[in-house]
Amino acid sequence: MTYCVAIKLNAGLVFLSDSRTNAGLDHISTFRKMMVYEKRGERFMVLLSAGNLSISQSVREILQTQQLEDENGGPPITIWNAKSMFDATRVLGAAVRHIQERDGKALERAGVDFNCSLVFGGQIAGESPRLFQVYSAGNFIEATAETPYFQIGEAKYGKPVLDRVLTPTTPLNEAAKCALVSMDSTLKSNLSVGLPLDLVVYDTDALACDNIACIDEFNQYFRMVRNTWGDKLRQAFDSIEDPHWDSGDNAASIQPDSSAIRPVKKITNSNVML
Amino acid sequence: MTYCVAIKLNAGLVFLSDSRTNAGLDHISTFRKMMVYEKRGERFMVLLSAGNLSISQSVREILQTQQLEDENGGPPITIWNAKSMFDATRVLGAAVRHIQERDGKALERAGVDFNCSLVFGGQIAGESPRLFQVYSAGNFIEATAETPYFQIGEAKYGKPVLDRVLTPTTPLNEAAKCALVSMDSTLKSNLSVGLPLDLVVYDTDALACDNIACIDEFNQYFRMVRNTWGDKLRQAFDSIEDPHWDSGDNAASIQPDSSAIRPVKKITNSNVML
Repeated sequence: MTYCVAIKLNAGLVFLSDSRTNAGLDHISTFRKMMVYEKRGERFMVLLSAGNLSISQSVREILQTQQLEDENGGPPITIWNAKSMFDATRVLGAAVRHIQERDGKALERAGVDFNCSLVFGGQIAGESPRLFQVYSAGNFIEATAETPYFQIGEAKYGKPVLDRVLTPTTPLNEAAKCALVSMDSTLKSNLSVGLPLDLVVYDTDALACDNIACIDEFNQYFRMVRNTWGDKLRQAFDSIEDPHWDSGDNAASIQPDSSAIRPVKKITNSNVML
Repeated sequence: MTYCVAIKLNAGLVFLSDSRTNAGLDHISTFRKMMVYEKRGERFMVLLSAGNLSISQSVREILQTQQLEDENGGPPITIWNAKSMFDATRVLGAAVRHIQERDGKALERAGVDFNCSLVFGGQIAGESPRLFQVYSAGNFIEATAETPYFQIGEAKYGKPVLDRVLTPTTPLNEAAKCALVSMDSTLKSNLSVGLPLDLVVYDTDALACDNIACIDEFNQYFRMVRNTWGDKLRQAFDSIEDPHWDSGDNAASIQPDSSAIRPVKKITNSNVML
């Protein structure tokens, strides 16, 4: 399995990926799921991948040379000359379709789904940062202000904190912290997601980025986040009053339903013919 | 979908279920997923169900009259005369197999999985409270001190808080609060889980229980939990320092990898032949 999350903010973009790959529980390996493409001062792009590793590696391999016909008769479009992230993402979609054509039938014969989820984001000079999620069919969607993040892989454990914290105005480093907390919940709950993590924090309009870190078990900041978050959650939980079973007017009262209005069926043996 | 959680503690048992059922996103209904069986002073049992509603309703319908041969030549075993929760759960497993035999082939022809997950727990005089999870094949597992809870249905969003809070010594009402917080995270993230909730909090050795509540959107305690938990989580999150990108010795420093040791592949266009 995999967990990757990418966030689009007014201030920039955050990308975080784990690095565990498994083919069954007894075949676990480490593979990086992040690729960074940069032409300093002109374009900066990050690709995160989940799904079948042979597919995502193949897509990455051909992405740089994949071409798309320009409908206006210009030179073929590649990720290195695309004028927009939308066009660069179309090139990525074409690379996925290329691999589908090459391997899809053989995978189908072997009973293997063509399973490939990608997140692709970045900035090309002339437009704002943009973030896309690309599906197995090469089609894609773009993040907006209402939904400023995408997750691929094991998304559920780490989703609640993203929903509670992120808005387009969240500062970049706060969003990086949020991604790391989200990853921590996922690491705790799914053994097939594992360290080290790769983190990129990109500032809007920089058109280049060196805030790229590999976070392993010795990383001081991530250790602090993991320890502190568990304790703080516990404190938050403890500070909420436990319920009381009474008919009082206290905020913590839960009034038991009288049997006259009880919606849960309570079956007593007196009802039953045995 | 469904979300149900049941917890076994030294102090007793907690059961919580939602009530939303859906057949596609455009066919949403409310069905209770909790049944309570009680013979005051002798046995108290609760059944939670998830999966295909026609299967779980059929299982519930026949459960009271389902019989199991006594290997020692005594009268047939039912949930009303079983001497242990283990035997009562065997009766439940037999009821699941009965429905499988009756409906399984027709469901298979229609391309529908025989999908049924059950949680069954309670106490019978003479033993301690016990809690079981029953699968579609009628086989089952029992909760232990190391894993004091079972979830069925949409389990992932609400699992982290259970893992962080629950131990066998957790007080009953604190565990009820924990189940409600776990449900809150699930309700926020999955539209196919919905109010009202059914809650049972059973005290060890009571062998009867009237702490049964139906919790709807107007329930004062659950509203307080929902509002407070969101705010407290946010405060906990805010109290952790954001990362800094520098090489300082500060606990919040994330040192960017130098390009010499960078494990993430950064591709610049100078590498590429176009």
